[in-house]
Amino acid sequence: MRTGALAARRAIEEYGAVPLVRPADLAGDALVVPLSGIGAPTVSHEMIHGEDEPRRIAEEVERVFGRPPDAVMSSEIGGANGVAPVAWAAQLGLPLLDADGMGRAFPEVQMVSMYVAGLPADLVIMADVAGNVVTIRPVDGLWSERLARAVCVAAGSHALMADYVLTAERARGALIEGTVSRALAIGRSTDAAPDPLRALREELGAARLISGKLTDVERRTTGGFVRGTATIEGTGGDRGRRLTLELQNENLVAVEDGRVRAMVPDLITVVDTETAAAIQTEALRYGQRVTVLAWPCGPLWRTPKGLETAGPRAFGYDLDYTPVEELTT
Amino acid sequence: MRTGALAARRAIEEYGAVPLVRPADLAGDALVVPLSGIGAPTVSHEMIHGEDEPRRIAEEVERVFGRPPDAVMSSEIGGANGVAPVAWAAQLGLPLLDADGMGRAFPEVQMVSMYVAGLPADLVIMADVAGNVVTIRPVDGLWSERLARAVCVAAGSHALMADYVLTAERARGALIEGTVSRALAIGRSTDAAPDPLRALREELGAARLISGKLTDVERRTTGGFVRGTATIEGTGGDRGRRLTLELQNENLVAVEDGRVRAMVPDLITVVDTETAAAIQTEALRYGQRVTVLAWPCGPLWRTPKGLETAGPRAFGYDLDYTPVEELTT
Repeated sequence: MRTGALAARRAIEEYGAVPLVRPADLAGDALVVPLSGIGAPTVSHEMIHGEDEPRRIAEEVERVFGRPPDAVMSSEIGGANGVAPVAWAAQLGLPLLDADGMGRAFPEVQMVSMYVAGLPADLVIMADVAGNVVTIRPVDGLWSERLARAVCVAAGSHALMADYVLTAERARGALIEGTVSRALAIGRSTDAAPDPLRALREELGAARLISGKLTDVERRTTGGFVRGTATIEGTGGDRGRRLTLELQNENLVAVEDGRVRAMVPDLITVVDTETAAAIQTEALRYGQRVTVLAWPCGPLWRTPKGLETAGPRAFGYDLDYTPVEELTT
Repeated sequence: MRTGALAARRAIEEYGAVPLVRPADLAGDALVVPLSGIGAPTVSHEMIHGEDEPRRIAEEVERVFGRPPDAVMSSEIGGANGVAPVAWAAQLGLPLLDADGMGRAFPEVQMVSMYVAGLPADLVIMADVAGNVVTIRPVDGLWSERLARAVCVAAGSHALMADYVLTAERARGALIEGTVSRALAIGRSTDAAPDPLRALREELGAARLISGKLTDVERRTTGGFVRGTATIEGTGGDRGRRLTLELQNENLVAVEDGRVRAMVPDLITVVDTETAAAIQTEALRYGQRVTVLAWPCGPLWRTPKGLETAGPRAFGYDLDYTPVEELTT
């Protein structure tokens, strides 16, 4: 996230401010390019990002559609992919859409609202740091993930990706709107607060699963993902308790004493107990003093197609989805 | 090869004969699409080939170039990829070019005459049996191999590929011409001969490395390739001798008593001793009575760029290239 924020600040200094526009502000035939970095975050942090990738994707969009893109959108508002699109939009001289495709972060390519809304996953464009551009016309969302992931791994486990390039008209009802504004509001509420953690919980409507110390992180970078577990031992009022998180780039399931306390697609986030700053899975370290928060995902993810796409079974967990509100009360 | 021949016969019955044209017969701006199957031959034999793949590649060529292709070419004349293009041309209603990009078979994407001739590897189009189409704009030939191989493995270790789509004008001097006619001549010479092996050797100008029995085949399908070794124990006049072949889809190096007897890019072929029919690496079986032939590759492969691309070091062998004529006399 820090890498993304630095890149965004630098790009704004160099190319000027990025206007934030609502989907309704765009003409019906305006081309929206949802962008995200694909790959293992552990690798992304060590890659030198070129400024060429957004330009090469925009060129390929123009080759495919016969006209240049009109707006950039973040495919996922969570993590570095929520911040870096500001830099990509600045570099391309385009506005940023106040919307994203997840309302959170998810690790796989097909886990976006456009897919859940039933839009065909018919085009993926990828640009890597070496200068290669790959255009995938997949038969469905699962193939888009499989092929894009293979290209990503071959390209060094990181690439910039445009998925579901679409007109503003088609985007209606298929995006999660207002998420850039909401991210800004969250940042402002905690920045100014005397008790940032409390301010964050109130802003999100989040339950506190545990506060404690990170005592065990088992993490490996494999198949283009970071996978593993993280264990938090309670401290203070939570002494004697122990929560384990299952990871695949994101926090998928939180378990305490064999009991699931929250699961995808609901949000599970590890934050610094003092500053309330989010700690991404790849930045988890032994000894960190953290609090784990959980709160409800957007309603789209709780539909049958949403749960099929990004519910616990989509990640290989033999669990029936239970909303976090029912698990934490 | 048999799979390819069956597909070719069936396609000709259904769609009509395929005209064979020379590069000089085409208009300068005619679009030539070099096609080949990419993947592990062990897998290709078990895949049900769709008829859709050539059509989907032709559609993508038209999308990219703004006009449909004018002729099909075999990317590699050796093995099934030398025969199957007859079927692909028939299905597309296009003529087949009397030329190819190797004058033999090679396992990797960049090992083609167009690459050795210095044409940029700027476009690869792949279609798989599931219906996916992937277009790669690689920065160079090695990236085209790396990315195409990753896509191939993700698609189930087999796909149809167009590499170096080019105009007839650009193709001049960058193809190995007359190789389809030559393959037909080789077939005719052995079909009619009372001693097929002798006829084949004369037609090819090939040295006989050994005749004997296949006693050991070690072969694994990995990373989209078939790799391994095959050992032939001499029989008859060759009793007491033993030749080992190193394989990566093709026969790369022939070694006897620690002495190299032939190496890439020269041709090493295992044939049935009685019928002189070629046996591809994936069809080698214990107990087969075989003869190993070796003969010189085309002059393009002996240039510095040719050897850098497909000489022994390109396959990881720490050997200086020595022409087969010097090793077998």
